[in-house]
This record gives sequence, structure tokens and C-alpha cells, in this order.
Amino acid sequence: MHRTRETARATLENLYRIFTVPEAPESTLGEIDQAISEDLAGFLQTHIVAIERSIEEIEADFSDSTIPEEPTYVSEYTEFVKQNLVAQSVHTAAPGFIGHMTSALPYFMLPLSRIMTALNQNLVKVETSKAFTPLERQVLAMLHRLVYRGENNFYDRWIHDSRYALGALCSGGTIANVTALWVARNRLCGPSDSFRGIAQEGLPRALKHLGCEGLAVLVSRRGHYSLGKAIDLLGLGRDNLVLVDTDAKNRIDMACLMAECQRLQRDNIRPLALVGIAGTTETGNVDPLEEMANLAAELDCHFHVDAAWGGPTLFSERHRHLLDGIERADSVTIDAHKQLYVPMGAGMAVFRDPTALSAIEHHANYILRHGSKDLGSHTLEGSRPGKALLVHAGLSIIGRKGYELLIDMGIEKARAFSEMIRQHPDFELTSLPELNILTYRYCPAAVQAALAKATDEQREQINQHLDQVNQLLQKDQREAGKTFVSRTRLQTAGSARQITVLRVVLANPLTTDDHLKSVLDEQCTIILQQDIQELLQYVELLCAGINQPPTSACA
Amino acid sequence: MHRTRETARATLENLYRIFTVPEAPESTLGEIDQAISEDLAGFLQTHIVAIERSIEEIEADFSDSTIPEEPTYVSEYTEFVKQNLVAQSVHTAAPGFIGHMTSALPYFMLPLSRIMTALNQNLVKVETSKAFTPLERQVLAMLHRLVYRGENNFYDRWIHDSRYALGALCSGGTIANVTALWVARNRLCGPSDSFRGIAQEGLPRALKHLGCEGLAVLVSRRGHYSLGKAIDLLGLGRDNLVLVDTDAKNRIDMACLMAECQRLQRDNIRPLALVGIAGTTETGNVDPLEEMANLAAELDCHFHVDAAWGGPTLFSERHRHLLDGIERADSVTIDAHKQLYVPMGAGMAVFRDPTALSAIEHHANYILRHGSKDLGSHTLEGSRPGKALLVHAGLSIIGRKGYELLIDMGIEKARAFSEMIRQHPDFELTSLPELNILTYRYCPAAVQAALAKATDEQREQINQHLDQVNQLLQKDQREAGKTFVSRTRLQTAGSARQITVLRVVLANPLTTDDHLKSVLDEQCTIILQQDIQELLQYVELLCAGINQPPTSACA
Repeated sequence: MHRTRETARATLENLYRIFTVPEAPESTLGEIDQAISEDLAGFLQTHIVAIERSIEEIEADFSDSTIPEEPTYVSEYTEFVKQNLVAQSVHTAAPGFIGHMTSALPYFMLPLSRIMTALNQNLVKVETSKAFTPLERQVLAMLHRLVYRGENNFYDRWIHDSRYALGALCSGGTIANVTALWVARNRLCGPSDSFRGIAQEGLPRALKHLGCEGLAVLVSRRGHYSLGKAIDLLGLGRDNLVLVDTDAKNRIDMACLMAECQRLQRDNIRPLALVGIAGTTETGNVDPLEEMANLAAELDCHFHVDAAWGGPTLFSERHRHLLDGIERADSVTIDAHKQLYVPMGAGMAVFRDPTALSAIEHHANYILRHGSKDLGSHTLEGSRPGKALLVHAGLSIIGRKGYELLIDMGIEKARAFSEMIRQHPDFELTSLPELNILTYRYCPAAVQAALAKATDEQREQINQHLDQVNQLLQKDQREAGKTFVSRTRLQTAGSARQITVLRVVLANPLTTDDHLKSVLDEQCTIILQQDIQELLQYVELLCAGINQPPTSACA
Repeated sequence: MHRTRETARATLENLYRIFTVPEAPESTLGEIDQAISEDLAGFLQTHIVAIERSIEEIEADFSDSTIPEEPTYVSEYTEFVKQNLVAQSVHTAAPGFIGHMTSALPYFMLPLSRIMTALNQNLVKVETSKAFTPLERQVLAMLHRLVYRGENNFYDRWIHDSRYALGALCSGGTIANVTALWVARNRLCGPSDSFRGIAQEGLPRALKHLGCEGLAVLVSRRGHYSLGKAIDLLGLGRDNLVLVDTDAKNRIDMACLMAECQRLQRDNIRPLALVGIAGTTETGNVDPLEEMANLAAELDCHFHVDAAWGGPTLFSERHRHLLDGIERADSVTIDAHKQLYVPMGAGMAVFRDPTALSAIEHHANYILRHGSKDLGSHTLEGSRPGKALLVHAGLSIIGRKGYELLIDMGIEKARAFSEMIRQHPDFELTSLPELNILTYRYCPAAVQAALAKATDEQREQINQHLDQVNQLLQKDQREAGKTFVSRTRLQTAGSARQITVLRVVLANPLTTDDHLKSVLDEQCTIILQQDIQELLQYVELLCAGINQPPTSACA
């Protein structure tokens, strides 16, 4: 009994320690912490093991579903994290890791993130966030201004009018897209006459009130998969997410879009929103936003632009014209954790009309009271961290011109890389870079020549084998852990069906031409592996027949 | 021209510096960083200014909507952050800040957060998260086990089977609740016969297929406001969020719940889900989960438990019985940034049936491919940070017994505080603490006595004035910045309408009885202010008439 009491006291003391005593600098965790502060790149280089363990092997380290009964020493736990988690994580900041939308982070993001974590503000309400509330509103106004270029008096009027909001900060582009379409839906189906609005009465009654069979969202085939989630979530059904064909440049085909709109009209389905893409995830292309804005105006429907990736192109004097028309969008998604170089978990949607978000306004008794300054009354999420600080820091420290340089460098780099691919006999460019994303595939010159002459059936057969080659190539390169590209499936101009392509995103300012060259060099080495060579030999055999057809017997 | 080129080169060099050179230890940011590492409590104490500047004054510091053209020095920016943001933030970790669901954080969370930020993994796909993927699955299995107490073989079977998921990690309880109800809706309206499911065909067709007029979610009046957002988002309409009356203990009244179900049946509205609350936001009470589980079984509808706050009560051998029945829930929300003591921005929903989340499964070409290990195929959000590390760290380092102690301490503290209030002549307890949340109000003994005898009209008049008193009290205490309670409006057992009450959440292990005493002491001082005294004098006059009615003339 006495023993138990003593144990309890010891546990209690340990507990207080955990909450009151910082990690000693010479402790394992203290040392890691310092190593990260002093030399992040070096830390990542040293601690992330390049050699691949299979995910199944790694799973074994994380297979105990029991919550430990007894506390563990921080030092012991840290050792585990070092060996089993950090070592086996992905070096997303490496300059040769160009397959996804990741990059090195500006150094100042780390200590500022620590300040954010230490303050542990909750942005849902001003009582737990105070100065972070106007800070977040300022950030939203800055992004709003970047997109919509309003006048000073517009922002003076709206920036801190808490009954309204110029946008919503959230955990990422998906929530931003959902928020935008939620607003669009609730505005189209707002209260009128005896109908109290969709928020109150629901979708079926809203359709009855509008006198239509359904609401549709139209976007090109390159639309982000979050739109599928959004339309499902909103109750509209994926049947009503109309995926419109694209042109040879991966932009929405306006003729197809108009044809789809006519079809919808015939079916008595009302277009809820057109979604333009400013930087498709797979190819980085930008839809003809002006033309889409015109059509949206004609249809009197919401125009949303998913600029999660490409939004920051607006910083560039040279390239911002690519996004012309975005200022006519009703709402725009921009991800801060992408080209604003903020750590993972920060997105936002801005709305041209400061009253738009009122369509999803909500209140509660203990917070978000009418008239309060609480940001939470206009956001999908509830409790949220003070990520706005990091966006604010990026905008302030890097500045418009700094971001411009980053954007311009990325686009130049993509052009340089596409030139390298073009000049290499064994690679084929499958989408031209418009921003800083491009796709290509391994496809030897002889095969390229044969594909140009092949019948549909032959082309199909060749492409199927090339798909396997490129899939293996990507997998082996990822597993080798030196450089990394991703892969996707695209229907390109020359193909009747989707083919597997390699995908490259060039946003890391530390990526140089040498890194790009080494990505291709490594691929050329991987290609020499036996399994890939066997596939290629078969393809070459097929192509030889096409390139130099056997002389006809009767010639 | 030459000048421009030089400026550009300088900007470029600065840009590289930002991405490659860490903050020097003696720089302002380096110093703050170190100060936070060495003594977080001291840092917060020193840097957060207690004296209130009005939010309008603070807004002036964040009113420029123009993104700066030129880069700013990190040191200059840091000075701004120190003076204008940190100083004017809220000391949410202070032991006397007991008004919201905030607390001091365990120290190890800070360096581990830094590791998380530095690694910048993206959990949506295994290619950008590797070991973080099985780590997150393990965390979900641990929480699943805490709730559902499955056997080893169950977890061995499901923990790493990536075709399925035991739950979803997300940014917070709102997204968790939305996810749970989305799953519930899509399961009830799944594909059958010629109907391809609500995800595909949308809500109106789903209702037609089910042959009903609507789908309803039933929860007590104490339900979190996120449920209102969820039902709006899902297209069901707030009319179909049925807010059921509560009993004197703020728990759902089962008779009322059953009556509401009958009403729905008459109206041909199908109950989609019953939502039980394990720790209401305002009063910390727990619904009769067993009885609700029985009713849900009878109705054959989804049973969701919102245990965002109270879930970790399951760690306590002494108190876990309060949540009996939770193991029969189809889904459970638990917030890690609440009683798991993880920094802001981490919630989760766990699902009893590992196949449940398949109802919202989605895929894309470049990630989330069929058969991939990518977590993103079963989450509402897309890109997400590696917050699972922090949950994992808490569970490992604090352990089940550590969390038990924290829970037990909080509940004891709430009882102790309620005893202080009860013994104080001028305060009135308005809800009994069941977990570690309670409400009370300033209401002098004489007023309490009068209210017991008053007519409805008199009671109304007195309460209106008391509402103002308590509102001013809460506001002035917040503005003084020493201690903090929140306020809400509740319909209590004795009142015909809602009254304003003060709300206290006791989860910070550093809060002592002395802090609690000083909260009341400060309130007693604030009450002496003239504006409040004037209101009270009026109330006392009213009460004097009730307590000692003037002798009737004819007596």
C-alpha cells in the first residue's frame, strides 16, 4: 500500500517534470534539436538513410497497438524516433527529390514554427488568439490583393470587419476547395421567398426550389481529386462532377466545356460552378481563365480557380499574365505549403466578394457569438493553429520580389530540363512546361520513330510495354533513394489512351542543372537492369518491324 | 541596366541565404528560439504582455494589405513579431487561464514538433512520408484499441492493411465529426441494386432510393456546433439536425430522444445517426452512451460518439466507466490537441469497422493508386503534416498511467473548485462537474434565496441583470489578463430560458487550488466596479422585495 503511494508520487513528479522542465541541451532530444537549428540540410543528409527498407519491414517497428502502460524516458523514445522514424523518412527537401510538390524550406520557418507551437494559440476565437486574429485577417487581405488587386479603400473597408471575411485559412487545398464549393452551393441555393436556404432545408428541397434535377461542377480532366471528394461531401454526387476534355496543352477545351453545359441544360442540371485550374497537379498547365470567366458570367454561375499550386505565379511580372482572368474568379484556392514555402498544413481560399463567406456563417453560445471577432464563424474547420504567422513571415521576409525570383527560376529550370529531355535521344517529353511542372517518359529514339508510323494496335502494344518500363524505372529510382521523380498516367496528344509518364516539379531553389542531369543519368543507368532490358528488347523488336518493314514478297 | 543586374544578383544571393543559412544563435530569432527551448514558461511569462490593448488598437499593426515589394531582414521581422504579435498573444498555457480547452504542453512536444516541421513529410502519400505512414496507422490502432478494446489478432489483421483504415487523422474535431457523418451517410446510402450509391448519384437520388423524405442526425442541445456545419455541408440541411432536450445533468433526455425519433418516423425522415457526447464542450457531461447504443441498434442507424474532449477519460481506471457504451459506437472523435496534450491542429476519428472508411475511398492517377499504401485514399483532407508523431510521443512518453493521472487530477480539481463555489455565498454552481468542466455564475446568496421564491416574471428580470453582471465580469477579467474564465449561455434546471454562466475547464496540470482561489478572488474584486455595482444594486432591490415582502395593508 505504502509502495503504491510512493509509486504514484514518483509518477506525479515525473509528470510535473514533463510539463515544467525543458530537455537538457546534452540530452538526445536536445542534441537533435540543436543539430536541426544549426544545420538542417546537414541533419537531414546525415540522418535520413538513403537505402530503402521495404515499407513492410518498416511496419514491423510500428505494429504494437497497445498503448504503453508505463511512461517511457524521453531519451529512450528519442532514440527510437531517430533510428526508426527519422532515418526512414523521406528527404523531401533534397534538391534531387523533384517528383512531388516539396522543397527545401527557408530557414526562418523553423524557429518561427517553434514560436507558433510554443504560443499554441487557437485561431477559432479571439479569446485564445488575440493578435493572431488581425494577423490572419491581414494575411488573407494580402493574398486577396495579390489575386484581385483591389484598391486601398476596399481593403481599409473590409480587412478587419469581422462580420465578413476575405477568405479562410485552413489546413490545405482540399479544405479550401471544399469551402469554396460549399459557399458556391449555399449562395446559389440561398434563402428566397418561403425557401429558407439549403443550409437550413437541405439539397433535395433546394433543387425543388430551383426547379432543377441536379447541380454540376465542371472542371477539366486534369482537375484535382479533391473536387471529387467535395462534390461527394456536398451531396451532389460524382456523376455531377463533369470532367471536360483538354486540348493538346492540357487546358480545358472550351468547345467541349460549352457542349457539356448544353448537355446539362438539356438534362435540367444547373451548373453550380466552373473550376479553372491554375497549375494542374500533373502537368502544371493553366486553363484559359478569361474565357472561363466569360462563360461563367454568361451562365451566371460561380467561377472558382484552383490555384493551389500556381497562385504564387502572380508574384512574377513576367509570368503573371498566364493567370489573366483569375481576378474575375469568385473564389481562389492557394496553398501556402506549396509555393509560399510554408511547412506542411496551410492552405487558403480567398473570395472576391467579402460577403460570400456569410453563406456558411455559423455561431455558438460560448464562442463565435454574433458580433464577436472570432475567425471561426467563417471557417469549415474549428480549432486551428496560428499558421498565418508563417505565411505572414514568408510574405514579409521574402517579399514580392523574392517570390518572383523563385517563380521565375522554377519556370526557367523547367524549360532547361525540358530542353535536356528533348535533346536526349532516349527520352520523350509528354507535356510542355508552362509553369514549373513537366512530364516525360523513357522512350528510345527508335521507338519514338516507330510510334509515329505505327497502327493503333501496334501503338497500344508498344505503349503498354513502355508503361511497364517507366513504372519500374520510377520505382527503382525511388528505392535507390538518390533522386526521385513521380509518375502518373496521362492521355497525351499522340495517344488514344492513358500512358505512364514521369512527373517532375521544379520548385526547390536548391535544385541545379547538375541535379537535373543526374536524374536523367541515374535513369539511364537503371534502364540497364535486366528486367527492364527484357521489356525494352521486346519493344525494340516490335519497332524494328515498323521502322524497317520486311520487304514485301511481291516487290 | 548594370545596376539592375547587380540588384538581381544580390536578391538571388539573399534568397539562397534564406534557404541555406540558419539563424545565428546571437540573432534575434536565434535568441528567441533558444529562450523558448530553455524556459518556455519563463519566455511566455516575460514576453506576453498581460495588459490588454483593445483588439482595435492591435488591428492597426496588421492593417497593410500590400505584400511588401522588397525582402525584409529576418532580424527586423523578428523584432516586429516580438513586439506586436508575441507580446499581444494569449498565454493559453498559464495555470490561471482556465476558460478554454488549453493547457501547458509537455516540454518534449516542442523539439519533437521541430523534428516534424524540419522533416516536412506529407502524409497523404507514402512517397513523401515513408515511415510516418505506418506510424500514423499505429497511432490510429492505439486509439482504436483504447476505445474498442479489440483483441491482438484483430489489430494484427488490420493495423497495416492499407486497403482499409481504422480511422483518420485530421486537423481537428470538426473534420473528424464531418468525416464520421460523411461515412455514415455514404454507408446508409451505399450502392444497391441499380442505385450506384450516394457518392456517385447524390443525395436527392439516394432519398428516392431509400424512399424517405430526409436524413436526420440526432444529438442533445449540448452538441458541438461542428455538427451543424457537418449537416449543412453534407446537404442534409440544419432542419434535420435534431437538437434533443437534456436532463438536469446536461445529458440527452432519452424519452425526448425517442419522441423525436417517432416524430421523424411520422414525417418519413430516416435517422442517419445518433450522436452521443462524451464531454460536452460547455459542461463536460457524458450522454448515456449505453442507452443510445441500444436505441441506435434498434433503429439500425449509425452511432457516433463525439469524445473530442472526454475520450482520454478512457485512460482512467476510476472514471472510464463514465463512457461505458462508447465501445459500441460506429465511430468516435477524439482530439489530440485537447486532452492528449498535443499542440494545436490534431484530431482523429476512429471507426469500429475497418471497412467503414471505404465508403469515402477515392483514388487518383499520380497518388492514392489502388493497392498503394497512401493514407490519403481514406481521408477528407489531402496533404497533411506528420502530427501523428506527436500523438505517438505522448502515448509513449506519458503512457497510459500518466494520462490516467492527468485525467484523475482534472476531475478532482473540478470537484474541488465546485466545492469552493458552493461554499462561497456569492457564487452559484450552474452545472455539476462530471468530468473536468463546470459552469457557475456570480449570484449573491440573497439573490439565490429570492430566485427560489420568485415568480417567472421576477426571475426573468433578475436573470437578465445577472446575465449582464456575469458578462461584464468575464470581460473585465479577461481584459485584466491575470486569470481567465470563459462564458456561455445555458438553460439550467432552474431557468425557463438561457442564462449567462462562467465556464471553467480544468485540464492544465499546473493549475493549483491557489490558482482557482485567485480566480474567484479576482472576480470578487471586479464585482466592486461601479458599473457592475449599479446593476447589482438594482437586483438587490428587486430581491429585497421578494425576500421580505411589504406587510399587506389589511393584515
